[in-house]
Amino acid sequence: MLKEMLEQVHNTVPLIHNITNYVTVNDCANMLLACGGSPIMSDDPEEVEDIQSICGGLNLNIGTLNTRTISSMFLAGKRANALGHPVTLDPVGTGASRLRTKTARELVQQVQFTTIRGNISEIKALAGLGSNTQGVDAAVADAVTEETLDNVIGFASRLAAETDAVIAITGRLDIVADRTHAFVIHNGRPEMGKITGTGCMLTAMTAAYVTANPDHPLTATAAAVCAMGVCGEIAFSRLQPGEGNATYRNRILDAVCNLDGETLERLAKYELRTIETV
Amino acid sequence: MLKEMLEQVHNTVPLIHNITNYVTVNDCANMLLACGGSPIMSDDPEEVEDIQSICGGLNLNIGTLNTRTISSMFLAGKRANALGHPVTLDPVGTGASRLRTKTARELVQQVQFTTIRGNISEIKALAGLGSNTQGVDAAVADAVTEETLDNVIGFASRLAAETDAVIAITGRLDIVADRTHAFVIHNGRPEMGKITGTGCMLTAMTAAYVTANPDHPLTATAAAVCAMGVCGEIAFSRLQPGEGNATYRNRILDAVCNLDGETLERLAKYELRTIETV
Amino acid sequence: MLKEMLEQVHNTVPLIHNITNYVTVNDCANMLLACGGSPIMSDDPEEVEDIQSICGGLNLNIGTLNTRTISSMFLAGKRANALGHPVTLDPVGTGASRLRTKTARELVQQVQFTTIRGNISEIKALAGLGSNTQGVDAAVADAVTEETLDNVIGFASRLAAETDAVIAITGRLDIVADRTHAFVIHNGRPEMGKITGTGCMLTAMTAAYVTANPDHPLTATAAAVCAMGVCGEIAFSRLQPGEGNATYRNRILDAVCNLDGETLERLAKYELRTIETV
Repeated sequence: MLKEMLEQVHNTVPLIHNITNYVTVNDCANMLLACGGSPIMSDDPEEVEDIQSICGGLNLNIGTLNTRTISSMFLAGKRANALGHPVTLDPVGTGASRLRTKTARELVQQVQFTTIRGNISEIKALAGLGSNTQGVDAAVADAVTEETLDNVIGFASRLAAETDAVIAITGRLDIVADRTHAFVIHNGRPEMGKITGTGCMLTAMTAAYVTANPDHPLTATAAAVCAMGVCGEIAFSRLQPGEGNATYRNRILDAVCNLDGETLERLAKYELRTIETV
Repeated sequence: MLKEMLEQVHNTVPLIHNITNYVTVNDCANMLLACGGSPIMSDDPEEVEDIQSICGGLNLNIGTLNTRTISSMFLAGKRANALGHPVTLDPVGTGASRLRTKTARELVQQVQFTTIRGNISEIKALAGLGSNTQGVDAAVADAVTEETLDNVIGFASRLAAETDAVIAITGRLDIVADRTHAFVIHNGRPEMGKITGTGCMLTAMTAAYVTANPDHPLTATAAAVCAMGVCGEIAFSRLQPGEGNATYRNRILDAVCNLDGETLERLAKYELRTIETV
Repeated sequence: MLKEMLEQVHNTVPLIHNITNYVTVNDCANMLLACGGSPIMSDDPEEVEDIQSICGGLNLNIGTLNTRTISSMFLAGKRANALGHPVTLDPVGTGASRLRTKTARELVQQVQFTTIRGNISEIKALAGLGSNTQGVDAAVADAVTEETLDNVIGFASRLAAETDAVIAITGRLDIVADRTHAFVIHNGRPEMGKITGTGCMLTAMTAAYVTANPDHPLTATAAAVCAMGVCGEIAFSRLQPGEGNATYRNRILDAVCNLDGETLERLAKYELRTIETV
């Protein structure tokens, strides 16, 4: 199941338009190439609609938003919707400033997203729940644990229903939910949190997966999340003594380059739950 | 011949002003350092003329252009021309949006470039020929092959005559032409296309080469193109199992750091043709 | 002494707001994570005050300044001052353009910095002395040597008194001074100059150190400078034949990830001088 998702990316080489932050933009571009897609970055209001029209999908990331790029996000998002292109949202730092929270919520109101992926604090802030957002990392108080898992799945699924988007909440445990089903994913390594942009890279890769698999947004998103986690594990196992976050980042990208569908299927650790609606 | 070009870069450490995209800017800076030059990035209209005046050359790259940086490109380009500084252009994504096509063409009209380097789709779009630009990568339909080589050389040489710039068209085969001569270069690896910014890095390096060799723009450009291809080969030969595009990028920069003139001369694979003008 | 500074970073995980250039921003984010802190980048006037209020410290770097981000630097700096947050300044390229010189000086007038770190040319230009700034690297004519050391220490200490900030001048020899004391630091490798952004990364790390050690700005700054130099040495010793600036950059970040207080204390090479005031 996940295997087919990955292979469709390799077969179709989706071209993804990214309006993203300047912190992790290079890693996002290399991640899109590594996973089998192709990136283009552009963020000026005068060209984003043109650029969107030659692409297959769109990835919006509010990591270093400003007035100019916010306008571009709305323009590109609406154009992508009009063209039927899948769109992903990475609501980086939602809850950390009023501008981010407002922008993320307005994007969700005005643009139809295929997948929204963030950490639990960002997704809670996006949903209007009190969150404990501390910068761009999830707050400890918000951590998803086995104890809170059922609650978080319920929350994710309700938000999926409200937004008609797949909701991916990533952290120690990853949850990928739509209104009827949820993947609970156990791949990944805590050391990935020492690399800037693993979340951004994942959302970019997700854009490639949902663009290549337009009829399977939930499974495609879960496949991307599993792929990132699996590659985090492969890369970690290859670290040598004395290596740290810079080399780990490179090895993760390298692992994504080399990942095939069978390896993904074999190493993915997830359970698929049916949402019980009352 | 190529050897002297490289050695002049090492001997003179040209300081290159870059107005470039935020996707690959870090790689361009490290490439300039690796090849023996020195980078400075600045893109605000209020300072680019000052910055240009302390530099030896200028590199313009429209990869993530916007209204503010477009103004800066014209200001810096004209100042560089007035100062007699070599200027390179990387017309990233020309043909992918009206803004890019318009900007690239106006730059070529208003600024005298020493070298213009792009993929075949970008250069065709710049020249006003129909191209099949698909994002920032060359379209398959535009690919330069042995069959189309003569045509592409003729096109490059005519554009060189029109613009009074060296035209470098890079891809599986690389062509570097002025109005009377063309280098056809066979170095490089297809896997370089899996790294974001190899083109941007090459144009940045070319700026260092033409700045260090002001009397030899054609040969200096060819030397930079050969150096990039040779280093792509060296780096590829050093890849270990499980490594991918992130490590490959690093190894290319590393190889450029360690490249000397004799190795470049020995590994460069090119033919130099005389253009037959009717 | 240095050991405690590092351990406080690890214990408190300071969240640092960065308004910085887009060339080295990814390396700065990974450096903050590597050293034990946490980064957030934001530069829009509409949100920088909000972002500052959730952070512990602020790092301002004028490397690719523009009108919008300059406004943000003043807003964030004043908010940080009001909140009692430590603030660092990296006056990249001061002296290279009137805009940079003016901005750096106005920042120092209007914002109280904890530490100002630059190369000798930048710091001289900031202080209004004639400097020989050539781009973003220190001019040869300005080099700090054993012969000029006493003069430079005196200069640094007077500037520290004037600005009420710790002054860190880094290069072959590093000087970290306040009005009464100066560290002279002998760590580091000349090859670090072949990597873009080692200075930026150091200033970002310094922000984490002074934020985690608010009562010890001089020692905390010296500890960060020693840590960078020590990690430059460790990383250099791990380089393999054929490796260059890209891998060296990664190995430095890796070394920072793995540095503990005892290793820092053991490998730091410095003398602490008392400033003789007349």
